[in-house]
Amino acid sequence: MPGVVVGVDIGGTKVLAGVVDEAGQVSSTALRTTPGRRVVTAQVEDALVEAILESAAGQALSGVGVAAAGFVDSRGERVMFAPHLPWQGEPLRDLLQERLGCPVALDNDANCAARAEAHHGAARGTISALMITMGTGIGGAVLLEGHVLRGANGMAGEFGHMQVVPDGQSCECGRRGCWEQYSSGNALVRNARTLMGEQPSVLEEMTGGHPDRVTGPMVTAAAEQGDLVARRAFASVGDWLGVGTANLVAALDPEVVVIGGGVSAAGDRLLEPARAALQRTLVGAAHRVVPDLVAAQLGPQAGMIGAALLVTSALGAERRVSGGDGPQEE
Amino acid sequence: MPGVVVGVDIGGTKVLAGVVDEAGQVSSTALRTTPGRRVVTAQVEDALVEAILESAAGQALSGVGVAAAGFVDSRGERVMFAPHLPWQGEPLRDLLQERLGCPVALDNDANCAARAEAHHGAARGTISALMITMGTGIGGAVLLEGHVLRGANGMAGEFGHMQVVPDGQSCECGRRGCWEQYSSGNALVRNARTLMGEQPSVLEEMTGGHPDRVTGPMVTAAAEQGDLVARRAFASVGDWLGVGTANLVAALDPEVVVIGGGVSAAGDRLLEPARAALQRTLVGAAHRVVPDLVAAQLGPQAGMIGAALLVTSALGAERRVSGGDGPQEE
Repeated sequence: MPGVVVGVDIGGTKVLAGVVDEAGQVSSTALRTTPGRRVVTAQVEDALVEAILESAAGQALSGVGVAAAGFVDSRGERVMFAPHLPWQGEPLRDLLQERLGCPVALDNDANCAARAEAHHGAARGTISALMITMGTGIGGAVLLEGHVLRGANGMAGEFGHMQVVPDGQSCECGRRGCWEQYSSGNALVRNARTLMGEQPSVLEEMTGGHPDRVTGPMVTAAAEQGDLVARRAFASVGDWLGVGTANLVAALDPEVVVIGGGVSAAGDRLLEPARAALQRTLVGAAHRVVPDLVAAQLGPQAGMIGAALLVTSALGAERRVSGGDGPQEE
Repeated sequence: MPGVVVGVDIGGTKVLAGVVDEAGQVSSTALRTTPGRRVVTAQVEDALVEAILESAAGQALSGVGVAAAGFVDSRGERVMFAPHLPWQGEPLRDLLQERLGCPVALDNDANCAARAEAHHGAARGTISALMITMGTGIGGAVLLEGHVLRGANGMAGEFGHMQVVPDGQSCECGRRGCWEQYSSGNALVRNARTLMGEQPSVLEEMTGGHPDRVTGPMVTAAAEQGDLVARRAFASVGDWLGVGTANLVAALDPEVVVIGGGVSAAGDRLLEPARAALQRTLVGAAHRVVPDLVAAQLGPQAGMIGAALLVTSALGAERRVSGGDGPQEE
């Protein structure tokens, strides 16, 4: 059946769907607000289906790829749990296949974004790469020859919960000292709030003097205006980004490290201190090629594009089995 | 030319060579003392050649595999640097090929040990595994479908220099807070020395009251006798083993984690606290299969066996190219 492939990315705050072609180009998109974690799961599925159908705009669906902000089982069938969504072991793939009447593929959002960067973005043509996704927390993926390493439980790439400070800052995961407590959107905001007590800042005015109203985009805007509190907040998050990256590079020795997610929009303000810290803390830096630390290229559409790639390759594999000649990836 | 394959493992203190068959069985071995890092490099090569020829005992050599305790370049030609050996960029593979008149293959010792465990030991049959080698420091390797991940510089698996404590204990690598400062043979000895000041210990007698004479094997022996200082030293090293392993498991989600190296001879005295710490510090432990943490099976011969495997597979690849039917591994 000829038709379009839709990728959909469901995060903690929004659902973004779009028609994606085989070159990774996005034609039409649709946006919904994520219903939140206290609703019944059917409401989340409704929002997904609505966004998918709106983006398809009446065209037949040949397949749908879903990128979900949560732990997906190694077979790509279920969302095992998700900090910002009500799913717990939800058989999302089959549920959506039934409602949409087309093949559905499912993976973790960071894996999808990495797959997209490997095929159409900053990790294209690499033998080995790391993707580090800095949003509210840190997600990530290990890329080997363009393939995402899934892991025995489908949980590889949970970089954000590597412990970097013994008995450090409390983490939502229930433990302490996780990397994402020092380098993430949440860490950026926390840093700014703390530093507002130490020196004057345009953030005072932006928040009406309420540090608890600081948001990540505010800190980015303030840093662009030259605000020292915002710049110090970024310097610390960037430094910790480099320290944690050095640990991953010691273990995996990739060619390139791609930094994506919302915080990466700050570009070199984040990446410069990270590169310095990577050079300073990476073992044997004088005896090796230290990998480039580069910004992701596909922005907020990476998850959606990577989800579409996933179902496209599944469809290709199916066609190959039945004698056709689908695309040869993954 | 029919002949035997010899594997040789050169560490900081000894050179161990042996004839290894295709099933990984070792027949004859030879041992030399490593000349140390202040000698000229030719002396180290002499010791290697002597051990290799002694183990071959007059039989023709069809190939030699070398496992070296140092950084080996990604093409397996040179030892770039080694903390306990005088090599700096030494073209060891070609030097030995010339002296021995047979094909030589070269890799890092931890990679070789991991390869051996993947083919004939504790990681046999796994899709993904980690090998953590606890000797003086920590070495390691990432195993994917039995293959060792080399990395862009040939430096993947340098787990020992992942930073686990900001501004922590000084490390020989010039930085601070490296994992191997808390979990290794050196850490075990340091713990015991410190604890000897706090409570009575058989180590007092063993060392004639000189804490600076404590060695790793002494701590192991004392722990077996029930000595509390030795047991506390192991408990701390084991706990840190689990904490660092949890970081690697968060990133890579392997099926199994194999612990090798000299310190692993202590068995469950090391592994029990490590398993507890892994369970405690691994993200999402309640939602996943936590990987088994198991002892390596091939002991001190693992590096030598894995080095032999490396050259055997290289010979096999050569035979395949020239129309023969060598073994099909790596």
